Amino acid sequence: MADIAVVSLSGGMDSCVVTAMTHAIGMDLALLHGDYGQRTETRERRAFEAIADFYRVPPERRLVVDFKALRAIGGSALTDRSIAVPEGNLAGTGVPATYVPFRNAHLLSACTSWGEVLKARAVVVGFVEEDSSGYPDCREAFFRAFEVVANLGTRPETRLAFHAPLLHLKKAEIVRKGVELGAPLHFSWSCYQGEDLACGRCDSCLLRLRGFREAGLEDPIPYAAAP
Amino acid sequence: MADIAVVSLSGGMDSCVVTAMTHAIGMDLALLHGDYGQRTETRERRAFEAIADFYRVPPERRLVVDFKALRAIGGSALTDRSIAVPEGNLAGTGVPATYVPFRNAHLLSACTSWGEVLKARAVVVGFVEEDSSGYPDCREAFFRAFEVVANLGTRPETRLAFHAPLLHLKKAEIVRKGVELGAPLHFSWSCYQGEDLACGRCDSCLLRLRGFREAGLEDPIPYAAAP
Repeated sequence: MADIAVVSLSGGMDSCVVTAMTHAIGMDLALLHGDYGQRTETRERRAFEAIADFYRVPPERRLVVDFKALRAIGGSALTDRSIAVPEGNLAGTGVPATYVPFRNAHLLSACTSWGEVLKARAVVVGFVEEDSSGYPDCREAFFRAFEVVANLGTRPETRLAFHAPLLHLKKAEIVRKGVELGAPLHFSWSCYQGEDLACGRCDSCLLRLRGFREAGLEDPIPYAAAP
Repeated sequence: MADIAVVSLSGGMDSCVVTAMTHAIGMDLALLHGDYGQRTETRERRAFEAIADFYRVPPERRLVVDFKALRAIGGSALTDRSIAVPEGNLAGTGVPATYVPFRNAHLLSACTSWGEVLKARAVVVGFVEEDSSGYPDCREAFFRAFEVVANLGTRPETRLAFHAPLLHLKKAEIVRKGVELGAPLHFSWSCYQGEDLACGRCDSCLLRLRGFREAGLEDPIPYAAAP
């Protein structure tokens, strides 16, 4: 039996590609998806299930976690409908309004707890640091520090290696990597506000579209606005 | 206005005492309680609300978080009814069956997210390392590493100091500290399995009773079994 890797799979392009990478090296997939009351959760959840089906991941290796705390705490354009999702502003400075306070620590905590119970060897995430929106909880320093915390706060026999293979890639490289591995990018969903058509204007759409453009490829998902 | 401290308040004796300590230094209390499907949640929740009432904490400064992930993941005698709660075995070695996989990271993540939104200055917990059941996620090394993670993974202007003032105290010292500060120990609840009467036999009861005995004081809560 292969070693188990817990992959944090939002259903977006980046997490779709790391799922493909983890599958490609022959690890058994355990896929975790976070519902934290984000605007497009219904669509993201559908992407998660479609990608899990694509890799034939059995039901007991899929975990959808409802992060009630993040819903209740708010403080982000993604979880609080009274805060607008910024559009067309990739050059903005500072932490954007779409930052969900310390969200990735909740995700990594759930990956670690599940990984401990499954006796997994690895936790894999699609964090991108450079070519990204600038969330503090996507940075390598945070991620490496969390790996230390995860191994300090679990049983002595639990040994989880944390991998974030996209941290220093450009979006175009991520697109190419996904296509090369046959990742089901047509099932992935990145938009922060649209569920039938991606808006093409939020940071997440702009980063994704720029990635496809720079890779010289066409994004297979439908957009409302021409890029 | 005083600085805000987010206190993780399970409703047990230790968290009751750190709530009293935080109140005593004049910080504004924001009390967070975790429901992770533990056996005695109904009773713990009642203790949480009674202690919050005692300190006149307004509703918007109380947060009860449902940690759905920990319920779903299981792997502990506290969350899985098919695993028995060990009794009368304080001298046991290794991590006990009541350890909830990486639970405290979930709690600290919620304290950090809420603290960031509230612009709090501190996160306070009642972790006890030495005179305890030996949970890996109650150790100082884990706690200090989490403080680093919390400040790396949040906005640059967010600065949360993490305090665990009971880490190296004996249970008898905790009891004395609580009594000295007028903490409402009669409202607190520590038992892992009883809800009307504390069992007096689980690790948590044994540690608490030993603390009161060594402090030369009587525990004000009702027990089923004579210590």
